[in-house]
Amino acid sequence: MPTAAPRIALTFGDFSGIGPELAVRLLAESSNLEKARISALVSHDEFDRACDAAGVSIPVADEPQTGAVHLVGSPLQDIEVPIRETSVDAGARVMKDLEKALAMSRDGDADSIMFLPLNKTSLHLAGMHEEDELRWFAKELEFDGFTSELNFIPGLTTSRVTSHIPISEVAQHISADRVRHAIRLLHSVVLGTGVETPRIAVAALNPHAGENGQFGREEIDHIAPGVELARDVDGIEVTGPFPSDTLFIKARDGEFDGVVTMYHDQGQIALKLMGFDQGVTVQGGLPVPIATPAHGTAYEIVGMNKAHLGPSQRALDIAVGLGTQTAERTRA
Amino acid sequence: MPTAAPRIALTFGDFSGIGPELAVRLLAESSNLEKARISALVSHDEFDRACDAAGVSIPVADEPQTGAVHLVGSPLQDIEVPIRETSVDAGARVMKDLEKALAMSRDGDADSIMFLPLNKTSLHLAGMHEEDELRWFAKELEFDGFTSELNFIPGLTTSRVTSHIPISEVAQHISADRVRHAIRLLHSVVLGTGVETPRIAVAALNPHAGENGQFGREEIDHIAPGVELARDVDGIEVTGPFPSDTLFIKARDGEFDGVVTMYHDQGQIALKLMGFDQGVTVQGGLPVPIATPAHGTAYEIVGMNKAHLGPSQRALDIAVGLGTQTAERTRA
Repeated sequence: MPTAAPRIALTFGDFSGIGPELAVRLLAESSNLEKARISALVSHDEFDRACDAAGVSIPVADEPQTGAVHLVGSPLQDIEVPIRETSVDAGARVMKDLEKALAMSRDGDADSIMFLPLNKTSLHLAGMHEEDELRWFAKELEFDGFTSELNFIPGLTTSRVTSHIPISEVAQHISADRVRHAIRLLHSVVLGTGVETPRIAVAALNPHAGENGQFGREEIDHIAPGVELARDVDGIEVTGPFPSDTLFIKARDGEFDGVVTMYHDQGQIALKLMGFDQGVTVQGGLPVPIATPAHGTAYEIVGMNKAHLGPSQRALDIAVGLGTQTAERTRA
Repeated sequence: MPTAAPRIALTFGDFSGIGPELAVRLLAESSNLEKARISALVSHDEFDRACDAAGVSIPVADEPQTGAVHLVGSPLQDIEVPIRETSVDAGARVMKDLEKALAMSRDGDADSIMFLPLNKTSLHLAGMHEEDELRWFAKELEFDGFTSELNFIPGLTTSRVTSHIPISEVAQHISADRVRHAIRLLHSVVLGTGVETPRIAVAALNPHAGENGQFGREEIDHIAPGVELARDVDGIEVTGPFPSDTLFIKARDGEFDGVVTMYHDQGQIALKLMGFDQGVTVQGGLPVPIATPAHGTAYEIVGMNKAHLGPSQRALDIAVGLGTQTAERTRA
């Protein structure tokens, strides 16, 4: 039933990098056009050029539907972006496209957003000065609830109670409430990736999980109570807090589908060793879910059609899963 | 030249676990008896029983020499320890053996110490209440200089600027002086493992290495100055600080021989994912170097002679390397 497929706003990311070629290669897989009603933020000309360069042919449509791509254009579609280098124009294009995608979600025209890789230097040149994209999205959406970047590799997703802040400030941001939020958000995203009963584990903050309060009390005072709330009130299958240096071995071995981390590097040290360069990042907690492949713009291989499609495919699948949740929530 | 071989005091660790069988299987490798003059802290009776159980035969001697094991006995050699369970007796034996080994080093009779796995619960039962063995060793030796646990897997060794303390207190313990000490100690231990010109990298404290001070200034104010001191004053090949979530990928790929970490889990998350259960721990910075396999007492396989000998072999090799350094320093 075509109308049940979620509506996804797709931006091509930074036009100086591999985003456009990944986008059209992804859309050239006909099964992807059946999973979602995709609106791409490019002009017909841009789309045709990208398809020609990638050697693919893709059906287009005048409105969102399955089986074809709806081309909605971009506010900056007439400005040519220099390839394989950072520039104000490249950054501005990324921002304008994302702003338009957010507007589509606000207007009820997108259930989720997916964007191809962007370049932080170009974004800074173009005036994005937030610590991370998540805060920029939250500001653009005037949203001040709990948000978390989530990181996905096949078999494991992580959320974070804190992210881009100094280690010296991490402990004071750990509360039962925030731990519970990070669990709920992770649970919902893992559900969206297709896991029926997500098994969630929560990392401790301190070494040896604080060794019964000997090296810190956050486990006792905040993390365990947050886990209890999520388990008892929200009915989520969640355990912990566990010492983080052995938790990721268990997660890698398939014991858990998701791990809630307390700080940025706790999760990223593990996930990057486990292959996160082929993973997906989700901007979670916002009114609209946003997914993107975790890798960068890869200037050195632009135009060669040799970038791995796996991360983009996984990002699209997650955008489909999370967009379906949004659509169901909206209809309910 | 036999007299050049370092003198190693070897304790069998916890007698309730796999320590004794690992010890005699290790000593049964005749090449090991050529690398060092090993004094084992067991009685002749205990040694014979362990050899019989493991099905090995090992030459013994009345004084330290290569080619045979010198049996020096233990203060608690007449007390039988129950196997496959924790007990006061097991913990007391471990402590008394280690105390005697420390005394041997103080008396100039041991250049390094190696111990087989111990059981923390038994140690607590027997009255060891320090946060970790390293602090207990420092107390026993009345040593108050910079110490660090070092962790070794083949190809990579880590040291720590902080260890068993709460995350909330980590930042205040980061100073240029301590960073420099941790670099020097790591450099010296990596030299001891046989690397000719150790390539040392230093991890940042904050996410993205603080992003130029945006998420914390420790990199700028303390870590970089500590790296500079070690490089410019001590002449060590050291670089950093690097964001810790990508540093361990580079280390795994062979770019560095050693990584200085800022806190316990930063190194241990990475090293445990990379196979630290087969690694070695070094109690570093003390007047005498102490090495031990990183794994535990493995009650479930006691008496089966199926425990992997690799970690014990690596621990002995490191004890030999570090003992040689001690001997050279003492002679100098």
